[in-house]
Amino acid sequence: MDFQNIFPVWNQLNTIQKNQILGSLNAQKVKKGTLLHNGNADCAGLFLIKSGQLRAYILSDEGREITIYRLFDMDICLLSASCIMRSIQFEVIIEAEKDTELWVIPAEVYKNIMEQSAPVANYTNELMASRFSDVMWLLEQILWKSLDKRVAAFLLEESSIEQASELKITHETIAKHLGSHREVITRMLRYFQNEGIVQLSRGTIVILDRKKLEQLQNP
Amino acid sequence: MDFQNIFPVWNQLNTIQKNQILGSLNAQKVKKGTLLHNGNADCAGLFLIKSGQLRAYILSDEGREITIYRLFDMDICLLSASCIMRSIQFEVIIEAEKDTELWVIPAEVYKNIMEQSAPVANYTNELMASRFSDVMWLLEQILWKSLDKRVAAFLLEESSIEQASELKITHETIAKHLGSHREVITRMLRYFQNEGIVQLSRGTIVILDRKKLEQLQNP
Repeated sequence: MDFQNIFPVWNQLNTIQKNQILGSLNAQKVKKGTLLHNGNADCAGLFLIKSGQLRAYILSDEGREITIYRLFDMDICLLSASCIMRSIQFEVIIEAEKDTELWVIPAEVYKNIMEQSAPVANYTNELMASRFSDVMWLLEQILWKSLDKRVAAFLLEESSIEQASELKITHETIAKHLGSHREVITRMLRYFQNEGIVQLSRGTIVILDRKKLEQLQNP
Repeated sequence: MDFQNIFPVWNQLNTIQKNQILGSLNAQKVKKGTLLHNGNADCAGLFLIKSGQLRAYILSDEGREITIYRLFDMDICLLSASCIMRSIQFEVIIEAEKDTELWVIPAEVYKNIMEQSAPVANYTNELMASRFSDVMWLLEQILWKSLDKRVAAFLLEESSIEQASELKITHETIAKHLGSHREVITRMLRYFQNEGIVQLSRGTIVILDRKKLEQLQNP
């Protein structure tokens, strides 16, 4: 799989722009847990994911986390190049959730091309609108949905990503995805266990009753 | 004050584009309380505010509201033209908070120009990044700040907008801005009154101790 096949506006670039990107492109392999971008202090550039999984999250002053979106094969990460737009006034952290292969387009190279090219600028708009939509979805979840529904939705999402009913995930990690506390998640999962929805053991959650989870998620 | 002086990328348009905009531009005067845009069902176009105040909010299935941003003189409202980007997958409602004079650029006209013009597309990017930043700020407030801090911040913001210490606003309206319930806001304001921070009467809140509000907001 080549970069040219993944980058959606490749065919709308001219030869000079194509050469600028290919000449500066940086292929990387990173291990699960690697921090790829840490707030506005660094401006790594645009990430194109060849394979793997990234997580973008925000951090409170007290060290609490909440996942704002996740990216998978062939997705593009714009906010790792947030310095290319001065109106982006928030900080996200981007971490590899699995071992990941990616290409990096340096921020300056992308910015120069975006300033000249309407197709690239409009494509960037669509990328930002997608991430904006993710955050609006999250905002609505937090505002209007109770935590049991959010935990149910998260377990179903994880199960779908991993294609498995047995999830290797700690309560602490779920808390960090959902912006909650470990104790609160543990209490909720024990309630799910009492209802026969999941079975808990150390570091593992087995989904026993997918239908009940789906009913919880969309009552 | 002319449209040409407010629209920031006017000088980067060519003559055809300028004529397209001027030929389709629609000047409107609307009364306080007018709904200008209601979710993705309509796609009114870009609003440029000559004078007045708009509020963008979202609505839960149960009819609860929360303000996601406000716009003032010379601001531009992009999400009233959300149909121009297919990746915007959320619905906002835009309402005049005061009597407002505005220009409307029809969505189709703006979209055509944006597709051709890198400066307009990049300007649109900055607009979206600003609103995205507003929502990220709101998300952080909701996640990490307690309601007393958010009510304090809201009263200070209102006082700054109105240039007054006496605010004509109901508890119900504050609840709708903050995504809360009237009863909860009333309880909080009564606590503020007991602490000598505000004085409450029917439909009016007088700020007595601005310093204490500021300390609450930024402890």
